[in-house]
Amino acid sequence: MSEKQDHDSEYKELSGEAAREKIAELAKGIHIAMMTTVAADGSMSSRPMAVQDKPFDGTLWFLTRNTSEKIDEIADDQHVTLNFADTSASKYLSLKGRATVSEDRAKIKELWNPMYKAWFPKGEDDPEIAVLRVDVHEGDYWEATSGKIVMMMKYAVAAATGGKIEVGEAGHVLVA
Amino acid sequence: MSEKQDHDSEYKELSGEAAREKIAELAKGIHIAMMTTVAADGSMSSRPMAVQDKPFDGTLWFLTRNTSEKIDEIADDQHVTLNFADTSASKYLSLKGRATVSEDRAKIKELWNPMYKAWFPKGEDDPEIAVLRVDVHEGDYWEATSGKIVMMMKYAVAAATGGKIEVGEAGHVLVA
Repeated sequence: MSEKQDHDSEYKELSGEAAREKIAELAKGIHIAMMTTVAADGSMSSRPMAVQDKPFDGTLWFLTRNTSEKIDEIADDQHVTLNFADTSASKYLSLKGRATVSEDRAKIKELWNPMYKAWFPKGEDDPEIAVLRVDVHEGDYWEATSGKIVMMMKYAVAAATGGKIEVGEAGHVLVA
Repeated sequence: MSEKQDHDSEYKELSGEAAREKIAELAKGIHIAMMTTVAADGSMSSRPMAVQDKPFDGTLWFLTRNTSEKIDEIADDQHVTLNFADTSASKYLSLKGRATVSEDRAKIKELWNPMYKAWFPKGEDDPEIAVLRVDVHEGDYWEATSGKIVMMMKYAVAAATGGKIEVGEAGHVLVA
């Protein structure tokens, strides 16, 4: 359950620089995002993706294998949603964007780091590496007020007090 | 990056009882799932949802507000994807299903617990409560071999050793 307006929480509308800063703050330290794409049968496929450790500026970059299923899905439908979860701190961030795929060797070199050897043991010159670029335009977020108290505990307290305590902050981020 | 077949990990195809057991094992202790639906503009909307603390049998049940955006999205397109993340243990589970909405008062009573008071301070008789049922048919999962060592550390080790160590287990689950 839960929709932004259902929460007994502070709700914010952020845009531009404030939105980008909020996204950067929420995504910081989250190394894996779930990327969701539209599959050929109309269902939505998700898979974990390693996130580049760079300050958020509106564009997210990934390296992937050019034979992977998501490449075909993006060719058919550019919509992607990227979900970042920090379960221990009860922070959730969902970003919507458009994905494009290239095999720009200079960009692959720029993005490459030794961690990718786990997927591409042949190294950065592996011809199967593709660059996946996501231009993020908007998103939503939900976070508990204290990173140390899990959301469910807050909800339990809220329930005990009739749902009238502040359980956290939620909001919409417009990147452009 | 990452697609099931890209990982240097054990890959399993599970179905029926084995699939349901695997899902139950992975979802256990995860109180919040991200539910993704197809929005009217073709993008995909996600939001955190409280998960019922019940053993997985193929169907997931949620309480939600009948005025929420997801209700309209599901009326237009029944596809939903539910993502469960345990970031500290590096476990990720993505389930595909079909959603249906009802206002079955007996079911609301059955699913109700005091936690929901945080969203519905009026209690279980609030006329705005709806039941969201998701019949799960398949999914994918990714998990690190040891719950105590985060995936990224494993990847770093894999990178240092040429990507040739076992980084975990991944697989496909067919519920039916």
